[in-house]
Amino acid sequence: MKRIYFIQFFTALLVLTFLPKVQSQENLPSGQRKEIISPEINADNSVTFRLVAPNAKEVFVTGDFLIPGEESKMTKESDGIWSYTTQPLPSELYTYAFNVDGLQMNDPNNVYYRRDVASTLNLLLIGDGQADLYKVNSVPHGTVSKQWYQSSGNDMTRRITIYTPPGYEESKTSYPVLYLLHGMGGDEEAWMTLGRASQITDNLIDQGKAVPMIIVMPNGNVAQEAAPGESSLNFYKPQFRLPHTMDGKYEETFQEIIRFVDSHYRTIPEKSGRAVAGLSMGGFHTLHISRYYPNTFDYIGLFSAAIMPNEEVKSKVYEDIDATLVTQKSNGYALYWIAIGKEDFLYQANIDFREKLDRMGFPYIYRESEGGHTWRNWRIYLSEFLPMLFNKK
Amino acid sequence: MKRIYFIQFFTALLVLTFLPKVQSQENLPSGQRKEIISPEINADNSVTFRLVAPNAKEVFVTGDFLIPGEESKMTKESDGIWSYTTQPLPSELYTYAFNVDGLQMNDPNNVYYRRDVASTLNLLLIGDGQADLYKVNSVPHGTVSKQWYQSSGNDMTRRITIYTPPGYEESKTSYPVLYLLHGMGGDEEAWMTLGRASQITDNLIDQGKAVPMIIVMPNGNVAQEAAPGESSLNFYKPQFRLPHTMDGKYEETFQEIIRFVDSHYRTIPEKSGRAVAGLSMGGFHTLHISRYYPNTFDYIGLFSAAIMPNEEVKSKVYEDIDATLVTQKSNGYALYWIAIGKEDFLYQANIDFREKLDRMGFPYIYRESEGGHTWRNWRIYLSEFLPMLFNKK
Repeated sequence: MKRIYFIQFFTALLVLTFLPKVQSQENLPSGQRKEIISPEINADNSVTFRLVAPNAKEVFVTGDFLIPGEESKMTKESDGIWSYTTQPLPSELYTYAFNVDGLQMNDPNNVYYRRDVASTLNLLLIGDGQADLYKVNSVPHGTVSKQWYQSSGNDMTRRITIYTPPGYEESKTSYPVLYLLHGMGGDEEAWMTLGRASQITDNLIDQGKAVPMIIVMPNGNVAQEAAPGESSLNFYKPQFRLPHTMDGKYEETFQEIIRFVDSHYRTIPEKSGRAVAGLSMGGFHTLHISRYYPNTFDYIGLFSAAIMPNEEVKSKVYEDIDATLVTQKSNGYALYWIAIGKEDFLYQANIDFREKLDRMGFPYIYRESEGGHTWRNWRIYLSEFLPMLFNKK
Repeated sequence: MKRIYFIQFFTALLVLTFLPKVQSQENLPSGQRKEIISPEINADNSVTFRLVAPNAKEVFVTGDFLIPGEESKMTKESDGIWSYTTQPLPSELYTYAFNVDGLQMNDPNNVYYRRDVASTLNLLLIGDGQADLYKVNSVPHGTVSKQWYQSSGNDMTRRITIYTPPGYEESKTSYPVLYLLHGMGGDEEAWMTLGRASQITDNLIDQGKAVPMIIVMPNGNVAQEAAPGESSLNFYKPQFRLPHTMDGKYEETFQEIIRFVDSHYRTIPEKSGRAVAGLSMGGFHTLHISRYYPNTFDYIGLFSAAIMPNEEVKSKVYEDIDATLVTQKSNGYALYWIAIGKEDFLYQANIDFREKLDRMGFPYIYRESEGGHTWRNWRIYLSEFLPMLFNKK
């Protein structure tokens, strides 16, 4: 081995690693070779964005940290680097993009993204507050598995994300299960990538605020095997509305998921060990799943639920809604939690639904937050919901 | 429920979903509102790229499908859409980006990416050949888990990716294990995201060309808990070279990984049930792990291995290399496979290494391919290596 001469391994590899992106650079004007840091989170939690764009005339940064109408024009330095520094920002997981002479683009110096339907934005996390729960911290971590279950009712195998808590593999005990449902446009990845569900759960368990539990995140679009890029459709442009998302089929075939989980994991396979919660369309699914199987879940969470009549849909799932709610009520449950933001476009629908529940004497806990129909709220709701689970005396 | 009026749920949600990216649109010139398809794979396997950029002066597409020097200038249509159509392309998983007036950017209409160290490029898959193995096909799928193991030797918990084959959960049998190692700049995600390891394995098992096996993909950077964004460092700009990647620590603590896997999975915990393979730095690790534990692995694969002297490094792992190779040889093994591309910068180092093995009478199989130090080659090598595993009579 000693005689094998080999000198510039690292240099050569370094060049090779960065070669693909400039493979045809002989054709191209160059402008992205400078090594810069963007975004940079400053000590006061302000953020500096930078972009190397010597030929650009006007560059903005746009993102959900801006107050509507807030100026976000970047300034060009002499070396072709544009920059913009925000005010100190409250703790949150933000998304952003650049706009260069009218063209929206991602930050080439930031490798962290989140996809929402067909758009992809860069991520940015400000700690020292609520978003500390969204961080990977030095705490024990659960296992996240992507696996496939046979859905006879939908005649396909379907992908599912399952979180098991720290210690699951080493213990012999059984765990309660939260079924956590995504919204329209989401899939079995949404609660992990946009919702930071595994980080929130790891952190709350570590803080002693949530009990160790299994979290099951199925794909609620029954026409889909799996998230975009993960099914036999491979790479295609995701679309917002899929067929059969709210036609009763998901609710009808939901028992397949419960059976799969109970047969593959050490669960507490009874009502006291089961919770179901969902956001938007997933709140709709939660409402219907929990009353359609009216003695199955002890903990129910509606996050900005898409409460809407499904009168045009022919499905036995949406028949006898009032009667099944009465049954659910008389069966009893430990928690029925309804959360919504004041600016949510579903706010009035939720008020109407609560009035209906009030008329029925159907107990629930109501949580009204600021803001609207956003992942920011759904992460907050999850972090408030988990501590209330599986603690019935 | 019938009286809860609710009319434009889908429209409202649609607007909301696409709102974040234009949240401060009052500040911004608009240019990305047109719904276009890019990339579009045509019937003859040519590809049409499109970008809405009405203000741009010159737009190129750049990617690893181009022949060096090939012209890739896009043409502006009257509606501000630039487009470029390639020649029919051979089956492959390609990466690409746009270059707009000197600024490299991702395709805003393509949500599929791969990260390699600190750069992120769009993905594009052409089937009808080798890359059919890289597709998600309608075949049984294995489970992919991200979990954490305790590394006492590195004094941290570390993230690891584990693939179990279709049927693992339902069977009671034990499976052989391939330890599959990444290169410098990679991590426990690289073989999944860049190497398409789960797709290749699912497909080869389904075709009866590979036996069902567990594949373990650890993180070979022992200074790291986990891939960028997945450790307690959270979001930071990844760098190419990390400390302690080739100083013996990984090889020394590798038995912890084997013990973790053997104690958490139904493995065949003996030499005949173990393979180890890796690319570049992972090939270096494979060479040393397989001879440092000289009676542990029956199948060894060096893919474009970074064969290099580590004379400046003080580690008992790199002492007595020749003697341990002799021991490994006399212990015997089922397969020692060395693969490299003719244009690889490590080509000569691999020739020298083979000459050394020849002098020692150390048996191996040599596979020389076209091309260089690329994921294209490593996916091909994996698809050729898997069928040779665990079939010793």
